[in-house]
Amino acid sequence: MSTLHVKSKTGDYPVVADGHVLEKLGEHLVALNTPKDTRVTIITDETVGQLPFAKTAIQSIEDAGYRTQCLEVPAGDQSKSLAVASTLYPKLLAFGMRRSDLIVALGGGVIGDLAGFIAATYLRGIAFVQAPTTLLAHDSSIGGKVGVNLPEGKNLVGAFYPPRAVLYDLSALAHLPARQWINGMAEVIKHGIIGNPQLFEQLEAQPLTSCPDAAVLEPILTAAMKVKIDVVEADEREASRRQVLNIGHTLGHAIEQRSHYQLGHGEAVSIGLVLEAKLAVARGLLDEQTARRIEVVLANHGLPTAPPRDDWNEVAALIDVDKKHGSTLWTFALPTAIGDVAIVKDVSKAEVEVVYQRALEEAE
Amino acid sequence: MSTLHVKSKTGDYPVVADGHVLEKLGEHLVALNTPKDTRVTIITDETVGQLPFAKTAIQSIEDAGYRTQCLEVPAGDQSKSLAVASTLYPKLLAFGMRRSDLIVALGGGVIGDLAGFIAATYLRGIAFVQAPTTLLAHDSSIGGKVGVNLPEGKNLVGAFYPPRAVLYDLSALAHLPARQWINGMAEVIKHGIIGNPQLFEQLEAQPLTSCPDAAVLEPILTAAMKVKIDVVEADEREASRRQVLNIGHTLGHAIEQRSHYQLGHGEAVSIGLVLEAKLAVARGLLDEQTARRIEVVLANHGLPTAPPRDDWNEVAALIDVDKKHGSTLWTFALPTAIGDVAIVKDVSKAEVEVVYQRALEEAE
Repeated sequence: MSTLHVKSKTGDYPVVADGHVLEKLGEHLVALNTPKDTRVTIITDETVGQLPFAKTAIQSIEDAGYRTQCLEVPAGDQSKSLAVASTLYPKLLAFGMRRSDLIVALGGGVIGDLAGFIAATYLRGIAFVQAPTTLLAHDSSIGGKVGVNLPEGKNLVGAFYPPRAVLYDLSALAHLPARQWINGMAEVIKHGIIGNPQLFEQLEAQPLTSCPDAAVLEPILTAAMKVKIDVVEADEREASRRQVLNIGHTLGHAIEQRSHYQLGHGEAVSIGLVLEAKLAVARGLLDEQTARRIEVVLANHGLPTAPPRDDWNEVAALIDVDKKHGSTLWTFALPTAIGDVAIVKDVSKAEVEVVYQRALEEAE
Repeated sequence: MSTLHVKSKTGDYPVVADGHVLEKLGEHLVALNTPKDTRVTIITDETVGQLPFAKTAIQSIEDAGYRTQCLEVPAGDQSKSLAVASTLYPKLLAFGMRRSDLIVALGGGVIGDLAGFIAATYLRGIAFVQAPTTLLAHDSSIGGKVGVNLPEGKNLVGAFYPPRAVLYDLSALAHLPARQWINGMAEVIKHGIIGNPQLFEQLEAQPLTSCPDAAVLEPILTAAMKVKIDVVEADEREASRRQVLNIGHTLGHAIEQRSHYQLGHGEAVSIGLVLEAKLAVARGLLDEQTARRIEVVLANHGLPTAPPRDDWNEVAALIDVDKKHGSTLWTFALPTAIGDVAIVKDVSKAEVEVVYQRALEEAE
């Protein structure tokens, strides 16, 4: 069992990872000093709710003596909405949830964000525990960002609201479809680029193209999560340092939207990482060989590395919206080495277009 | 001009009160180090929005060089909802509001709570300034509680989210109808009972039954706000000490609900203060003479002091709901002297009924 600790202005929290977290979820809640009269609402989605480990997790909480209810929402991003939140608050009330009670987010990033937002706002804030069940959630469950989408865009309503704990069952990841697995690996590789050259080299030497044993996965994910933790501790409210986490995401997010979410988040980030490494090379911030290593390690994990055949102006328009202001220059987080990222605030649309178009041609 | 300071875990803020705040609102924003490229959205209601001082306030912000938009919602408690919030977020987006921009809540408690909730959640939280325009808001604008109602009950969704400043124009209170004025005075008197005997004695000697000159009002409201500030600084998240603010509210809130809001909040609190003082006497916590002083000072302000002719069991049922748990004993904040309050956790329904019924008989 690995335990990391996250320092947060509004309360520190542990990140526990091993292959047996969910079957001992009740014991973990006890270890977190959760009083026995606490009511526990598990929020999950209809897919995860049907998996055996979900039943095991709920049973474990009940066996520890807590009163539980389980609320399921439809699987998928459309559940991350004020409308779905509005249907859940009354169910918390009906179950008698008070400010001293607890929500458990059992699922991937959508569930963590939605359940966390509900926890942040129900009765002005109650405790919640992240119990991630996807590889991508090794990223989203840490750092305290919670929220829902508006029809106008993603994550536009939310809060910085740290969980009481992240309890991560690595054996639950064995259920992930192959494509979800590699999507998650894009963020693991991103964390290597941001702050852990050893992790990056390990994935170069031995690509993790499917879910290994929990014992093999534990040190890898712990290393990736440690990178994220170091960044969010330095800048909890995303004033500056946290921007390094956007590496691959400025272009990636626009490409993901342009694909109408036919590309998975990790797939789009993979393309974004490759393009932004090329942009860093064009700016003289990164050597070509390192950019090539980034491209190869992503490709070796089965991730796409070339931009989709698309109209550059449409992609650029989405970056403009994403940046939420009318400035003519964009801010990018760009790799300067494996293990180091710079924030560059004066990127012009024209220079990104050159990189984008050249990558399109190279992919022919 | 009086300036108080509130210490908060997530940022200290000043409380400025005088008779010229709104005409200098732009200057105040400059003094708060608000950069000149900040976009300012003023959220107000349709009643306040039509008053001359609202136009003056907006003009002052524009004169200081800020880009502004003004959003009006219907006046009244029904605007404090997720549905209304959902209509405002897109307007913030359309105006180009970023995380560094600012919301000004111009109005009473409903506007402060709604605009504060939107500020707490839009883009995971942007700054907001409370610009209260009612007497009741001397209470609600301090302490960082923001939120909206659900159909199931009041203030069930929200956050603890302190404003960047409270900018309180006391001359704006001159527009208040007589009944709104005395409703606000109930909370001023409450603050005297909680922590300022001099304030209480001043209101005994010279009841403030209508809005005086700002110069007269300033020391009185500053004293009342200081009581609130001291309590919320000691217990920002309402873990314990903040419960003293509930004096008059446990019974008051139930009576307010039972009247279907025909009684104003301050009127219901007035009745609650009188009944809870009698309860304190019955428990031997307060002498009869002090309870009588509380009753007289409220009556001298034109506030009701006798419970409405109602079925006690219906009132009791609402207290049970309000306390949000099935415990057979209730917690009350009870006065023990002018200037002191005790939290009493073992109050039985039966003993409150005795007080309630006797007060009904006395009122015959």
